[in-house]
Amino acid sequence: MSDLFVINLPTKVYYGDQLDNNLASEVLRFGKNVMIVYGGQSVKRIGVLDRVRGLLEDAGCNVYEYSGIKPNPRHSQCEEAAEMCRQYNVDVVIGIGGGSVLDASKLIAAQRYHNGSAWDLVIKRDIPDKVLPVIAILTNAATGSETDGTAVITNEELHRKKGWKNPLLVPKVAFTDPVLTFSVKPYVTACGCADIFNHVLETYLSPNKGLYMLDTFMEGMMKTVVRYSVIAYQEPENYEARSNIMLASSWAINGFVRSGRPHVWPMHQMEHELSAFYDIPHGHGLAIIMPRYMRYVLNGETAHRFYQLGISVFGVEPKLSDMDAAQETITRLEDWLFNQLSLTSHLSDLGITAEHFQEMAASIKEFSGDPLGGFVPLKGNQIIDILNMCL
Amino acid sequence: MSDLFVINLPTKVYYGDQLDNNLASEVLRFGKNVMIVYGGQSVKRIGVLDRVRGLLEDAGCNVYEYSGIKPNPRHSQCEEAAEMCRQYNVDVVIGIGGGSVLDASKLIAAQRYHNGSAWDLVIKRDIPDKVLPVIAILTNAATGSETDGTAVITNEELHRKKGWKNPLLVPKVAFTDPVLTFSVKPYVTACGCADIFNHVLETYLSPNKGLYMLDTFMEGMMKTVVRYSVIAYQEPENYEARSNIMLASSWAINGFVRSGRPHVWPMHQMEHELSAFYDIPHGHGLAIIMPRYMRYVLNGETAHRFYQLGISVFGVEPKLSDMDAAQETITRLEDWLFNQLSLTSHLSDLGITAEHFQEMAASIKEFSGDPLGGFVPLKGNQIIDILNMCL
Repeated sequence: MSDLFVINLPTKVYYGDQLDNNLASEVLRFGKNVMIVYGGQSVKRIGVLDRVRGLLEDAGCNVYEYSGIKPNPRHSQCEEAAEMCRQYNVDVVIGIGGGSVLDASKLIAAQRYHNGSAWDLVIKRDIPDKVLPVIAILTNAATGSETDGTAVITNEELHRKKGWKNPLLVPKVAFTDPVLTFSVKPYVTACGCADIFNHVLETYLSPNKGLYMLDTFMEGMMKTVVRYSVIAYQEPENYEARSNIMLASSWAINGFVRSGRPHVWPMHQMEHELSAFYDIPHGHGLAIIMPRYMRYVLNGETAHRFYQLGISVFGVEPKLSDMDAAQETITRLEDWLFNQLSLTSHLSDLGITAEHFQEMAASIKEFSGDPLGGFVPLKGNQIIDILNMCL
Repeated sequence: MSDLFVINLPTKVYYGDQLDNNLASEVLRFGKNVMIVYGGQSVKRIGVLDRVRGLLEDAGCNVYEYSGIKPNPRHSQCEEAAEMCRQYNVDVVIGIGGGSVLDASKLIAAQRYHNGSAWDLVIKRDIPDKVLPVIAILTNAATGSETDGTAVITNEELHRKKGWKNPLLVPKVAFTDPVLTFSVKPYVTACGCADIFNHVLETYLSPNKGLYMLDTFMEGMMKTVVRYSVIAYQEPENYEARSNIMLASSWAINGFVRSGRPHVWPMHQMEHELSAFYDIPHGHGLAIIMPRYMRYVLNGETAHRFYQLGISVFGVEPKLSDMDAAQETITRLEDWLFNQLSLTSHLSDLGITAEHFQEMAASIKEFSGDPLGGFVPLKGNQIIDILNMCL
């Protein structure tokens, strides 16, 4: 455990249906010129776009829009939107959507005060002195982008997808109303929940021992996600399920449970490569990687951690040996992802072959060094071994 | 569950030994005139007072001191200190101590801009438009005052002790270094841990069902406190134990796990009456009240909640019936408090008789209405019944 860390959770989070009473006043703290960023039709269909626009216009705001943000958001779109922010002297960016829209909103907010390519900010892990404030209105709980300082951006020409983070990027305010996630499709819900689970798991499998209390929080979050993902998958309008998933999405990745532990996240790094080359849903890629990664790093030393995970999260029998419990844990994880949430279990199901695995391993090495850290350090060829297990 | 709540955790918390590198810069955000508030000898003995003073003087601050804050802090002292803040044009209050000092620091910070008695602020649940910023340096983990907006203040003439809270009172910055709690005596550690546990329990026994994820966090915190209190009691310089207790002290009461549940806290209200009349340690009073309250409200409807508590926190056998598990849970709670932490188990051990129980029940009724809410609503005579069980 690192003895030194800082807990700083600056986002003010409105939970439940609180847009009408609070959006305008929160926006006007920053100014009247507002850029709304969103993806496609879904925010229109559920009525939240018109509602937000109406609330802002009633409050006397000048409202501009940038739409069409794609899953695995592109730096090029962020550059276009940032140029609009300059042109209209925008004071605040409101992202309405899931992780892709919110991540794009952060890069737009930073690119507003940056001269040069937006991709440079990401790849150089740079940040301008000043960024526009971001307000998040969440419509899909998954990435936790609503309360963290991370943006994961794709460069389509280079086939690269990279996470970039800075405290300045943390949204000032987030509106998290579970009802706004009712229309998220079962498959997308399953992908989102795999992502949330993995955010916690990546930290839980840290090589550094952290505070026990945070272990209990992580176990509680993973248990919550497993339990309610299955309910939301079957009953998309179950408020209790959507509520718990929404809360877990933020807390899995807002930095709190990670306190005192390094941020390496090998499974995410591998998945980002897959998404960069094949544009697959991030959570689905993670679901496929997770059990293979776990089997690959399972050994006499790591087994006890998997034992703890299994006992606390999957109801594995405590009397089993560490190794038997670890195996059972991975089996139950697979059952949850591939049977209960019906995610397909192989990369080949998504049309992925081994063709680019070498390039992927090289890209990870370039961005994060060799070996890649995590629960067990991985050399480049070991990354390829794991990807091969996923085929 | 209330569908609407706001999560707002504005305190920046430095964890571990980070005073040297960060205190001065955090103070200078607010100004150069600093009032240090503390209790007695302990902050001198462990060297933190001189260290803080040195850091501030090196940074060019003008440092004033108000010392002698007593456990169960008095409004009268806060008035004196606030008058000094006016006189010296103080910009920021630094409380060095445990809950009493931090609670007093908050009232000082508010009283600085208030005309009239400081007790009025508490009893009228009032707040001036402006308060001084408070920085907390924690030397005893218990009340969680370092990250919440609550101050519990005693009026010695009136024999009243009341909690008062407002978002403006939340400390801006907190320094939480487990090493600064190494010298906390075993008895005080036991009292503090009983207090932390009870903060969680009061919320866990809310009549409203809240988010499941928050239940898992509460169970994790209670498990953490039970586990590490016993270690810290035996090994006061165990860093891992002090760390976990310190983190739990903040998170038990910073408002997060309470999201969507009402704040009634009947056990605290009863204990505040005891402390107001007899000046006993708050945590010790709570330890005595807790199992009696639980036995009193245990019935066919409430038993399942105690079952969940017992299974998750005390390792009670899940195959027991709700009622049997509930009884076993209370027995194990008593074993923890009265055997493992060696707290005496009766009010009579602390010199308390039934003499003032009528007045205490009347004071609770006046402040919080009749019946008193909570897991099971309590009429005034029922409060007296529970106090009698504690004798």
